Amino acid sequence: MGKTFQPTDIVGATFWLITIAMIATAAFLFLERRRVEDRWKTPVSAAGVVALISAINYFYLKDVWAATGAASTVYRFVDWQLTVPLQSVSFYLVLTAVVSVPAALFWRLLVASVVMIGSAYLGAAGYMSPTLGILIGVAGGLYILGEVYLGEASGLNSGSGNEAAQSAFNGMRLIVTIGWAIYPLGYFMEYLGGGVDEASLNVIYNLADFLNKIVFSLIIYRAAVRDST
Amino acid sequence: MGKTFQPTDIVGATFWLITIAMIATAAFLFLERRRVEDRWKTPVSAAGVVALISAINYFYLKDVWAATGAASTVYRFVDWQLTVPLQSVSFYLVLTAVVSVPAALFWRLLVASVVMIGSAYLGAAGYMSPTLGILIGVAGGLYILGEVYLGEASGLNSGSGNEAAQSAFNGMRLIVTIGWAIYPLGYFMEYLGGGVDEASLNVIYNLADFLNKIVFSLIIYRAAVRDST
Amino acid sequence: MGKTFQPTDIVGATFWLITIAMIATAAFLFLERRRVEDRWKTPVSAAGVVALISAINYFYLKDVWAATGAASTVYRFVDWQLTVPLQSVSFYLVLTAVVSVPAALFWRLLVASVVMIGSAYLGAAGYMSPTLGILIGVAGGLYILGEVYLGEASGLNSGSGNEAAQSAFNGMRLIVTIGWAIYPLGYFMEYLGGGVDEASLNVIYNLADFLNKIVFSLIIYRAAVRDST
Amino acid sequence: MGKTFQPTDIVGATFWLITIAMIATAAFLFLERRRVEDRWKTPVSAAGVVALISAINYFYLKDVWAATGAASTVYRFVDWQLTVPLQSVSFYLVLTAVVSVPAALFWRLLVASVVMIGSAYLGAAGYMSPTLGILIGVAGGLYILGEVYLGEASGLNSGSGNEAAQSAFNGMRLIVTIGWAIYPLGYFMEYLGGGVDEASLNVIYNLADFLNKIVFSLIIYRAAVRDST
Amino acid sequence: MGKTFQPTDIVGATFWLITIAMIATAAFLFLERRRVEDRWKTPVSAAGVVALISAINYFYLKDVWAATGAASTVYRFVDWQLTVPLQSVSFYLVLTAVVSVPAALFWRLLVASVVMIGSAYLGAAGYMSPTLGILIGVAGGLYILGEVYLGEASGLNSGSGNEAAQSAFNGMRLIVTIGWAIYPLGYFMEYLGGGVDEASLNVIYNLADFLNKIVFSLIIYRAAVRDST
Repeated sequence: MGKTFQPTDIVGATFWLITIAMIATAAFLFLERRRVEDRWKTPVSAAGVVALISAINYFYLKDVWAATGAASTVYRFVDWQLTVPLQSVSFYLVLTAVVSVPAALFWRLLVASVVMIGSAYLGAAGYMSPTLGILIGVAGGLYILGEVYLGEASGLNSGSGNEAAQSAFNGMRLIVTIGWAIYPLGYFMEYLGGGVDEASLNVIYNLADFLNKIVFSLIIYRAAVRDST
Repeated sequence: MGKTFQPTDIVGATFWLITIAMIATAAFLFLERRRVEDRWKTPVSAAGVVALISAINYFYLKDVWAATGAASTVYRFVDWQLTVPLQSVSFYLVLTAVVSVPAALFWRLLVASVVMIGSAYLGAAGYMSPTLGILIGVAGGLYILGEVYLGEASGLNSGSGNEAAQSAFNGMRLIVTIGWAIYPLGYFMEYLGGGVDEASLNVIYNLADFLNKIVFSLIIYRAAVRDST
Repeated sequence: MGKTFQPTDIVGATFWLITIAMIATAAFLFLERRRVEDRWKTPVSAAGVVALISAINYFYLKDVWAATGAASTVYRFVDWQLTVPLQSVSFYLVLTAVVSVPAALFWRLLVASVVMIGSAYLGAAGYMSPTLGILIGVAGGLYILGEVYLGEASGLNSGSGNEAAQSAFNGMRLIVTIGWAIYPLGYFMEYLGGGVDEASLNVIYNLADFLNKIVFSLIIYRAAVRDST
Repeated sequence: MGKTFQPTDIVGATFWLITIAMIATAAFLFLERRRVEDRWKTPVSAAGVVALISAINYFYLKDVWAATGAASTVYRFVDWQLTVPLQSVSFYLVLTAVVSVPAALFWRLLVASVVMIGSAYLGAAGYMSPTLGILIGVAGGLYILGEVYLGEASGLNSGSGNEAAQSAFNGMRLIVTIGWAIYPLGYFMEYLGGGVDEASLNVIYNLADFLNKIVFSLIIYRAAVRDST
Repeated sequence: MGKTFQPTDIVGATFWLITIAMIATAAFLFLERRRVEDRWKTPVSAAGVVALISAINYFYLKDVWAATGAASTVYRFVDWQLTVPLQSVSFYLVLTAVVSVPAALFWRLLVASVVMIGSAYLGAAGYMSPTLGILIGVAGGLYILGEVYLGEASGLNSGSGNEAAQSAFNGMRLIVTIGWAIYPLGYFMEYLGGGVDEASLNVIYNLADFLNKIVFSLIIYRAAVRDST
C-alpha cells in the first residue's frame, strides 16, 4: 500500500483518509448503480468514475506526500483536468435523465470546464502568466455558474417537474458555487499571494475534494434512488 | 503482498488474519448483495463498503506493524472516521428497508458519530486535551445508544412488525453497546492511564474490529436474506 | 508479482502453482455463481470465498518461501482459521439449499471447527502444550465427522431426497475424512515427532490444500449446477 | 502507484493524465455496457478492452518515463499491435450490430491492420529498413481507409439505414483519417528525419492516443446508447 | 508494473505483449460471457479462466525475463499444468453445451492431459529421464488427439447436428494438432538436443501460447455467440 506516514503527520492522515473515502465511494456507486432505473445509470456511472479517478490520483499523491512531505498543486491538476469536466457535464447528465436536453448544452459545459482547468494549469505550471491563467479560469467558472443559475440548464431544471432531479441539481449547483470557490482562493494564495503554508493548503484541498467529489456524487445517487422507487 | 512477519509474531498474525477476513467479508457481501431484495441492497452495500474500508486500512496497518513493530492508534482513526459513521447510519438504512423513516434520523446519527470519532481523534493526536476528546466522544456514543434504545430509531424498530429487521436491529444494538465500549477503554488506557502494552492493545483492537465490523455486517446480511425469501 | 523463484526450486513451483490455481478457482466460482439457482448461490459464494482467502494467503506465503526458503506452518493457520470454519459450515449451507435445517447445526459446526483450529494453533505457536493442542483439535475434528456421518447433518442429508446435494455432501464428507487427516499428521511430525523436512512438509500441505479447497469447492459447484438445470 | 514525477515534468503529467483517463474510460464502458442492447454489447466490450490495454501499457510507460526521462516509441508498439487491429475490427463490429456483414470483412480489416503495425514495428526496431517498414505500414493504412470510405464496409454503412450506427461509423472514420495520421508523421520524424525531441514526441503521441482511443471509444458508446433507447 | 525492459529487448517486448493480450482476452470473455446462453456460459468461463491463469503467470515470467534475461521453461509448466487440462476438458464442455455427454469423457480428457504435462515436467525438472518424460507426454497427447479425431468425443461432435459447436470443435482440434506440437518440439530441442538459444525459444513459446490460448478461447466464444442469437 505504498509508503507509510509518521503517526504525527496529520496532513498525511487526511491524504490517506480521502484516498480510502474515494475508493469506498466508487465501490458504493458501482454497486448501487445496478438498482437505479436505466435513465439514471449514466449519471451514477459518471459520479462513480469521478470518485475512481480521484482515488487513483490520491493513491499517488499520498505517496508523494509520504516520500517528500510536499505535494505541489501541479499534481492535483491531473485529477481536476478529468473530474471537473466530468462533473460539469453531470448537470447535463442529470437533466437528460428527466427531460429532453439539446446536445449543445453538453458541449458548452465541457468546453467551459476544460478551458477553466487548462488555463489555470498553464498558469500554475508557468506556461502562462499565473494572473492570466486564473482570470481565464475564473471566467470559465462564471460561465458555468451562469449556465446553471440563469441559462438554458437552469431553465430545463425548473421546467422538468421532477422533484428528485431538481433537488440534486440545486445541491450540485450549491457545491459548485461554494466548494469550487476554494480552488481559486488556494491558487490565489499559492501563486499570486506572498507564499503559503504547504501543509495547510493540502489539508484545505483534501477537505475541498471530499465535499466537491464525494458529497456531489452522493447527491446524484440520492436523486437516482428517490426517482427509481 | 507487502512486508512479511516473523513466525513468532502473533500480533502480526492477527493483523494478517483480520486483513484477509475483511477482504473475504467484502467479497462475500458484494456477491450476495445481488440475491437480496432491492430494498435491502443499500444496507448490504454499506456493510460491504465498511468491510472494504477496513480491508484497505488493515492492509496498510499490517505493513506498518511488520516494518516497525508498532501501530499507533492514530492510524486506526482513518478507518474509524469512515466506518463508524457508516455503521451508525446503518441503523437508519435497515429501518428504511422495512418502514418509512424521516431523513432527520439519518442526519442525527451521522452527526453524532462524526463528532464522536472526530473529537476522540483530536484528543489522541494532541490537538485537544485527551480528557476533553474522550468526554465529547463518549457523549456522542451515549447519544447514539439513546437513539437506538429509547429514541425515534428504537420506536420505529418496535413498530416495524418485521421480525428479520428487528432481529438485526437488536443484534447491531448489542454490538454497539458492548463491542464499541472496547475503544474508549483502550483510549482510556493508552492516553489517560499510565501507559499500555502496544502489542496487547493492538490484539484487542483487532479482535474488537472483527466483532464490530464483520459480525455487525453479517447480521445485516442475515436479515436481508431472511426477509428476501 | 512479488519475489521470484529459482528454476530448480520445485517447492517454490508448487507454491506458485497453488496460488494461481486458487485465484482461478475463485474467479471461476464467482463467474459461474450467476447461473445457479438462488438457493444454491450462498454455498457457491462461500466456496469462492474459501478459494479467495487461500489465494491471498498463498500469495503471501510464496513470497515468504521465495525470500527465506522456509514457510513455517504458523503462517498457514491464518488461512485455516478462516477457511476450515467456512468449509465446515458449508455442510450446513448445502443442506439449507435443499431442506429446512435448524440454525443450531450451523453453530455446532462453526464452534467445533473454530475450536479445532484455534487449539491446534495455540499448540503450534507454543501458547499451549502441542500435545494438548492437537488432542483438542482432533476432538473437534472427530465431532465434525460424527455430525456428518452419524448426527443430525447426516440425517438431514439422507432425508433430503435431492440426489445432487447428497452426492456433494458425500464427496465433501470423504474429503474431510481423508484430506483433512493430512494436517494432524503433518502437525504430529512437525511439533511432536523428531523434526521434519520443511520442503517435503510444504509440498504435502500445498497438495493437501489443492484437494481440500479446490476439489471441495468444485464438488459444491457441481451439485449447484446439476440441481439448477 | 509506481515511480513519482517531478512537479515540473509536464511530459510526465501527460503520461499520468492519460493513464488515469484510460482506466476511467475502461471502467465507464464496462459499467455502461450493461445498459445497451445485446447486439451493441460486443462493440462496447471491444472499446472498453482497447482502453484497458492502453491503461496497462501507459501504467508501464509512465514508470519508464519517470525512471529514465525517456520512453522509446518501441514500447508503444505493444499497445498499438493489440489496439489498432481491435479498433480496425470495430468497424466490422459496429456494422454487425445493425446489418448482416460477411465474415471476410472482419478478416480483411484484421490482416491489414496487423500488417500495418507489424511492418512499422519491424522498421522501428531495426529488423527491416525503416523506409520499407513505413511504406508497408502506410499501404496497410490506406487499404483500411479505402475499405471504410469506398469499399464494402462503406457500402454496408450507407445501406444500413441506422442513423446512430452511421454517425458512429463516420466519426470513427474521421478519427482514423486524421488522428492515425499522427503516428506515421511521428515515425517519419523519429526514424527517417534528422532526429526529434523526445519530450515533444511523447506529448504528441499521448494526446494522439487520447483522441484515437478515448474519443473513438466514446463514439461507439454514444451510438450504442442512442440505438438502445 | 514490475521491472522494465530495454527498448532493444524484442524478446521482452513479446513477453509484455502476450501478458497484456492475455489480460485483455480474460476481460473480454468475462464481459461477453453474460450475453451467451446459459448452456454456453461454462465453456466461456473456462476459456476466460485459461486466459487469466496465463495472464498471471506471464506477469511473473516477464519480470523474471526483465530481471535475468532468461526464463527457464520450468517456469512455464505452472501455467501448462493448469491450462492444458482445462483446455482438454473444454472439448467436453463444448460438447455438453449441445448434446448429452457421459462424464467418463471428462475424466479421460482430464487424466490424459494431467499425465501428459506432469510427466513432461518431471523430465524437464530432472526428476525423471527427459526421454521418458517426453515419451509419456507424447503418448498422453496422442491419446487426446485420438479421442477428438476418432474416439467418443469425435462421434458426439459429428452427431450433435449443431453447426456452431462443430465448427468450434474442429477449430480447437486443429489448434491442438498443430499448435500444441510446438511444445514437444521445443522440449526436444531444449532437453534432448544439443542446446538451444533461450531468446528464440521464448519467442516461439510466447507466440505458441498466443495461438493456443487466445485463438483457442476466441473460437469457443465465437461458437457461443453464434449459437446464442
